[in-house]
Amino acid sequence: MFLEKYSIEKHNEVSLKDHQRRFSFISSEVSNTENILKKLIDFQVAIPSWALGTGGTRFARFAGGGEPRSLEEKIEDIGLLHALNRSSGAISLHIPWDIPSNASHIKALAAQNGLRFDAMNSNTFQDQPDQELSYKFGSMQHVNKEVRKQAIDHNIEVIKYGIELGSESLTVWLSDGSCFPGQLNFRKAFQNTLESLQEVYAALPESWKMFVEYKAFEPNFYSTTVGDWGQSLLYATKLGPKAYTLVDLGHHLPNANIEQIVALLLMEQKLGGFHFNDSKYGDDDLTVGSIKPYQLFLIFNELVEGMDARGMNHATDLGWMIDASHNVKDPLEDLLQSVEAIMITYAQALLVDRKKLVAAQQENDVVTAQEILQQAFRTDVRALVAEARLRSGGALHPLAVFRGEKIREQLIKARGAKTVATGL
Amino acid sequence: MFLEKYSIEKHNEVSLKDHQRRFSFISSEVSNTENILKKLIDFQVAIPSWALGTGGTRFARFAGGGEPRSLEEKIEDIGLLHALNRSSGAISLHIPWDIPSNASHIKALAAQNGLRFDAMNSNTFQDQPDQELSYKFGSMQHVNKEVRKQAIDHNIEVIKYGIELGSESLTVWLSDGSCFPGQLNFRKAFQNTLESLQEVYAALPESWKMFVEYKAFEPNFYSTTVGDWGQSLLYATKLGPKAYTLVDLGHHLPNANIEQIVALLLMEQKLGGFHFNDSKYGDDDLTVGSIKPYQLFLIFNELVEGMDARGMNHATDLGWMIDASHNVKDPLEDLLQSVEAIMITYAQALLVDRKKLVAAQQENDVVTAQEILQQAFRTDVRALVAEARLRSGGALHPLAVFRGEKIREQLIKARGAKTVATGL
Amino acid sequence: MFLEKYSIEKHNEVSLKDHQRRFSFISSEVSNTENILKKLIDFQVAIPSWALGTGGTRFARFAGGGEPRSLEEKIEDIGLLHALNRSSGAISLHIPWDIPSNASHIKALAAQNGLRFDAMNSNTFQDQPDQELSYKFGSMQHVNKEVRKQAIDHNIEVIKYGIELGSESLTVWLSDGSCFPGQLNFRKAFQNTLESLQEVYAALPESWKMFVEYKAFEPNFYSTTVGDWGQSLLYATKLGPKAYTLVDLGHHLPNANIEQIVALLLMEQKLGGFHFNDSKYGDDDLTVGSIKPYQLFLIFNELVEGMDARGMNHATDLGWMIDASHNVKDPLEDLLQSVEAIMITYAQALLVDRKKLVAAQQENDVVTAQEILQQAFRTDVRALVAEARLRSGGALHPLAVFRGEKIREQLIKARGAKTVATGL
Amino acid sequence: MFLEKYSIEKHNEVSLKDHQRRFSFISSEVSNTENILKKLIDFQVAIPSWALGTGGTRFARFAGGGEPRSLEEKIEDIGLLHALNRSSGAISLHIPWDIPSNASHIKALAAQNGLRFDAMNSNTFQDQPDQELSYKFGSMQHVNKEVRKQAIDHNIEVIKYGIELGSESLTVWLSDGSCFPGQLNFRKAFQNTLESLQEVYAALPESWKMFVEYKAFEPNFYSTTVGDWGQSLLYATKLGPKAYTLVDLGHHLPNANIEQIVALLLMEQKLGGFHFNDSKYGDDDLTVGSIKPYQLFLIFNELVEGMDARGMNHATDLGWMIDASHNVKDPLEDLLQSVEAIMITYAQALLVDRKKLVAAQQENDVVTAQEILQQAFRTDVRALVAEARLRSGGALHPLAVFRGEKIREQLIKARGAKTVATGL
Repeated sequence: MFLEKYSIEKHNEVSLKDHQRRFSFISSEVSNTENILKKLIDFQVAIPSWALGTGGTRFARFAGGGEPRSLEEKIEDIGLLHALNRSSGAISLHIPWDIPSNASHIKALAAQNGLRFDAMNSNTFQDQPDQELSYKFGSMQHVNKEVRKQAIDHNIEVIKYGIELGSESLTVWLSDGSCFPGQLNFRKAFQNTLESLQEVYAALPESWKMFVEYKAFEPNFYSTTVGDWGQSLLYATKLGPKAYTLVDLGHHLPNANIEQIVALLLMEQKLGGFHFNDSKYGDDDLTVGSIKPYQLFLIFNELVEGMDARGMNHATDLGWMIDASHNVKDPLEDLLQSVEAIMITYAQALLVDRKKLVAAQQENDVVTAQEILQQAFRTDVRALVAEARLRSGGALHPLAVFRGEKIREQLIKARGAKTVATGL
Repeated sequence: MFLEKYSIEKHNEVSLKDHQRRFSFISSEVSNTENILKKLIDFQVAIPSWALGTGGTRFARFAGGGEPRSLEEKIEDIGLLHALNRSSGAISLHIPWDIPSNASHIKALAAQNGLRFDAMNSNTFQDQPDQELSYKFGSMQHVNKEVRKQAIDHNIEVIKYGIELGSESLTVWLSDGSCFPGQLNFRKAFQNTLESLQEVYAALPESWKMFVEYKAFEPNFYSTTVGDWGQSLLYATKLGPKAYTLVDLGHHLPNANIEQIVALLLMEQKLGGFHFNDSKYGDDDLTVGSIKPYQLFLIFNELVEGMDARGMNHATDLGWMIDASHNVKDPLEDLLQSVEAIMITYAQALLVDRKKLVAAQQENDVVTAQEILQQAFRTDVRALVAEARLRSGGALHPLAVFRGEKIREQLIKARGAKTVATGL
Repeated sequence: MFLEKYSIEKHNEVSLKDHQRRFSFISSEVSNTENILKKLIDFQVAIPSWALGTGGTRFARFAGGGEPRSLEEKIEDIGLLHALNRSSGAISLHIPWDIPSNASHIKALAAQNGLRFDAMNSNTFQDQPDQELSYKFGSMQHVNKEVRKQAIDHNIEVIKYGIELGSESLTVWLSDGSCFPGQLNFRKAFQNTLESLQEVYAALPESWKMFVEYKAFEPNFYSTTVGDWGQSLLYATKLGPKAYTLVDLGHHLPNANIEQIVALLLMEQKLGGFHFNDSKYGDDDLTVGSIKPYQLFLIFNELVEGMDARGMNHATDLGWMIDASHNVKDPLEDLLQSVEAIMITYAQALLVDRKKLVAAQQENDVVTAQEILQQAFRTDVRALVAEARLRSGGALHPLAVFRGEKIREQLIKARGAKTVATGL
Repeated sequence: MFLEKYSIEKHNEVSLKDHQRRFSFISSEVSNTENILKKLIDFQVAIPSWALGTGGTRFARFAGGGEPRSLEEKIEDIGLLHALNRSSGAISLHIPWDIPSNASHIKALAAQNGLRFDAMNSNTFQDQPDQELSYKFGSMQHVNKEVRKQAIDHNIEVIKYGIELGSESLTVWLSDGSCFPGQLNFRKAFQNTLESLQEVYAALPESWKMFVEYKAFEPNFYSTTVGDWGQSLLYATKLGPKAYTLVDLGHHLPNANIEQIVALLLMEQKLGGFHFNDSKYGDDDLTVGSIKPYQLFLIFNELVEGMDARGMNHATDLGWMIDASHNVKDPLEDLLQSVEAIMITYAQALLVDRKKLVAAQQENDVVTAQEILQQAFRTDVRALVAEARLRSGGALHPLAVFRGEKIREQLIKARGAKTVATGL
């Protein structure tokens, strides 16, 4: 055990008085504290199995140490995060990196750590050592029917693993596209992709959802076959009611208004879930909230408004997942920062005075509408988020505990300094 | 008459020998010359009435002279262009700037100039002097039903004028949107807009099309209510079979792959037409082909491929229109350059060896696919375009005739140096 | 008098208790409250004379009412703002829109309102009615020496007006550039501009500074002759020690790292001042802090760090000015929101624990470095800013007083509903 | 020998008649054919050693076959290219990937292939297996003096290898920067970098140049320490007369006007050389001229104008190099396409009627200026480029010979299907 419950309690004790003062202050500022706390406690963000190791770029990868060497150790890592923040109670697996040799054992281990299995992720953007046909020129879009079949079969296999583990959704990210004008026929690529997705869709269990992720560019640099929300929505609509669009914050063209996309997808009942991260230039996969925290707030503002308008359950009706790359930070510390940013932003969005906002909008009172949003965003809600953690048995200051308990040092000692987690 | 037929002939005579040499060369290089010439002759680009005067920015407008002072003079200007290039045989009007007081007179004048009436354009992005309610906070999206009704009624009135003149389509460009987060509810703005469009749609004559134009930003700088092709397609789909998406080349986020959008809209049978221009930064409204001629070629490449795949008539099944702003050039010279760029690019797209391209794509032979496109683009087709003009009675070198015949000087003499055409 | 001192006091009285609670809390959280308050009190943001009326785009302008009709009324408006927030104690004039017919009268009026005269702004981006030569093709870059001379003379005249009023700096924003490839020779345009600026520089009084503003695009849409910080720095370096670069937040290409530019200009001792605004797409001129508040914080973080490293006085050693356009908001309300955002962000930047940050950087502890910045940004400093206002005799809630006292209604009554302020 | 001289001759014979007809036509269209041919023959583009293998992204790499396994085989590959196009007569090495164990042997081999050694490239963006200190947090910017020293020493070692081979320039590309706000102090990072560069500069032989490359982002995603031309110019100016800026076409923010940057760097006598490639989104490293051929033309237009204005030798006074990544094409075919695009564009730039352009600019005749540039760009100069190749002993159609002679098949046979060239 890298982290004992009493260690968290010990740390909490030290900061408790300060926390209580802050929580008492924010409670006096906010009207519906208990309601907000309840929602914060319920809200869980899935951690992707591939984000537990050091990330890299096409230029280099500068490894850290103590990275998980197996699915079991990945679950252990996420268990650590969840013990600290009580908001990371789900894991998102990636096949073939995380093929469970013994599903019931893995399920039990996850349950011990308080984790459930969120969306399963397939991989048709790389060639695996034993793979028959190459995805060099795409997978579901491929001109060769055999390649498409291979990609379809792989996805169906991923569903099978997901069923064993109790997952209920499949995320399909296709890196399909082209690097040069003329390389492919856009229409035929779309139609091939649609037909391939339809075959996978047909294999979905009744209760499952399929998330169709879009991305503007990279690793293809001229076109992508699921390039924007419009294309993803086209696929999802043609596929049927179990198909949804998945929004990754880093997958847009410069200056895109992501919050509007979110609102419209909710309107169309086709928003499926999120990959959280932050970025300045492209799909930079930086820590959530580290670059554009106000944009994140505006997105959560639309999520809360739009989900409430449809009577959706914040915690369960959409898939929430982090998808970041940790190139210069300790992956676990980075994930703690990301989850913290998400919780803070969600709390701020819950503070928005919806009634006043509707009234201001109805009057075209743009100044007041802005004031209402800024009132929420400028409020320091950290004590609210900490209180939610405290009540769930987590740490007031997860990062401080992680460092104070020398968890990374322990992991290196246990696993070695040169381990490399599977993933990118 | 600012331009006599014999003036064109006189100029053509001088350059004829050089032209014949060039045309003879390109004919020997290209296999299906006559077929291409026929298509070039048939292809007509509509000139918008508001592009005949000097344009401006929010900072300044530096007027030229001799600008048309009335709808009659606008028709006269486009008649001049068409006499020179035989490819500008249509006019696109804008209400209220071009309300025809006497429709049959206007129709006759247009006919004399060889012009037909292309799409009618409504205007709910400005307040007119006698207007009851303001569009400051939008028109069809407006929270106030009365404002929406005013916008609907205006569009229906525009259709009425169009019927009188023989137009068969309505272009709806909405500048609706918001400048600040919180200003509007995206979902309600969408729904208000949809309902408004539905009322206009209901008033469309049987043979008419409605073009729903999208734009990423400007004049609203936070969100726009028809912001991208995905949103426009949503509206057009919900509206019905007479509603289509209109693509303006300057209305995208940076780096957007417009040619793919075009291909997908054609696939969905929802591409309605084009506003041609060019740009480097935003909706710069520069001369067609002056900044990114290869992108224009790639778009035409998709148009030719996609229209042929559906058995569409290049000349008549989509609306072709220029929408540019002439801030530093003579508007008529600028339009001649734009039409020339369109014709050159269309000719190049016709040169693409489709059979070989399909074969290369089928083999994932990316190198050859690129060679095929570049083979077409690198070919100097100007003599083909000139020959098409010559056969239609136009000028081999329209710009040279315009300058040689001192047409601008004549216009200034006739209309004055300080005229300001209606428009932006 | 549109606003009496006792009105402010009356409003403050109502909110005082709440304020004291909040201020007491934040004081307990922050170690150097008094020091920060002093800096906040000293910090003044200049209001540009042209921002007091409704702004517009090239498409439309939707006027408000009660706009100032004269320089006197502009001073009155800024006096109102300053009375409310005690942070707008300077005015930035624009010639020819604000030519003072009687300088000593204007100076006295400004003094009565507690205002000083910040940078003077010249205008060679428009043609004035009585102007001999046109700036259609640029001013200081112009191929015609006479046009350049006209632009030089105008700037020297602006300096003259500035001397009369007690200003000590000249902001030169050149819209010079080109709309099309080939239009100008970049090198010659640069050299003409440099020579023109040198002549203006020679006319600067000893104590004056010249600010060379850069802008990536608009109103020219292919190139601009002072296009980025690199070009501005080249000019400023060649001009001499009185020449500096001016940074307008909206004048960059997408995704530019403005805070790094600021840091490097400070390093080179060539940062002159700021035009604050916010934007999502281009030079959108939105309310400061309304779109990317964290970017603003990062900029202030560099300003505080860099100025302190050079022993500069925050309040006086750089020029601070708002440059926004109020298209959908009441201009005065919008300016109150902008100044508030600036003060909040400045206060947050003052909270950054510099010593710890240096230590984290020295250790490459990226996680902690981020925590330190976020700790400051996530702190709710509004009570600090309000306390600074209170101590200076301003309003705890400026916007509430503005609305509560029905100041806009008073202005409309006094000035009329259809007034149009000079400016864009 | 994978390619015999008579194979080229055999292929040329087949196409000769067609070529002669095309060359005869273009000769009749262009006034100074011989002069242009001479310049085309002299112009050589260096091939980087790392571009001879399949490239990849952070997601995947899909290998080809027959990739060079040693420096000798890399020289062989470039020799092949040069035999085909006679325009690739230089090689740019990268240390440590190309450490020559026997310099005189390598020099002799290069000479046999008609190749000279262009700029040497250092590598401080990766950790090598035997490396003492890590570059995870930068190299020349690093807070730790020991790391900076290691980077300096490495660069000095690279110079040493270059001297042995007869190179005369060093390209320094630093991936230094930061991924998160707060990670580094911009000013100190700049100063550390400057001091490090100064030490390397001090080790440059008299005749050498140092190229300081800039890049806006990647692999660092928040800031880069040589981020734009302004920063590179600052370094180069502070370093001294042997230091220059190197422009890589893919290293800019969206919409940057690269041709203007080129013109200004030439004006300042600080342009050192080029890395050619093309891109749509970021540093996509696509085939030269495959996405924005007109931008490439505008850049060459400035190069020709600016170099001529300074009396520079086109072929020798700047460093010309390709820097692309071949993810979906055969690397050698891709390089043939890139060199062809460069030669075509250079030829077009040579066609620009400079005298007329100057006259048009002097008259602000924007329309004519555009016509002059488009006249050159629309001209089909492929026969000119082919003639230059023919006269130098190269192939009329290099790509056709490469395929016709089954060179890749030969390489695979000789080297194996699974080879992986050193490089990214």
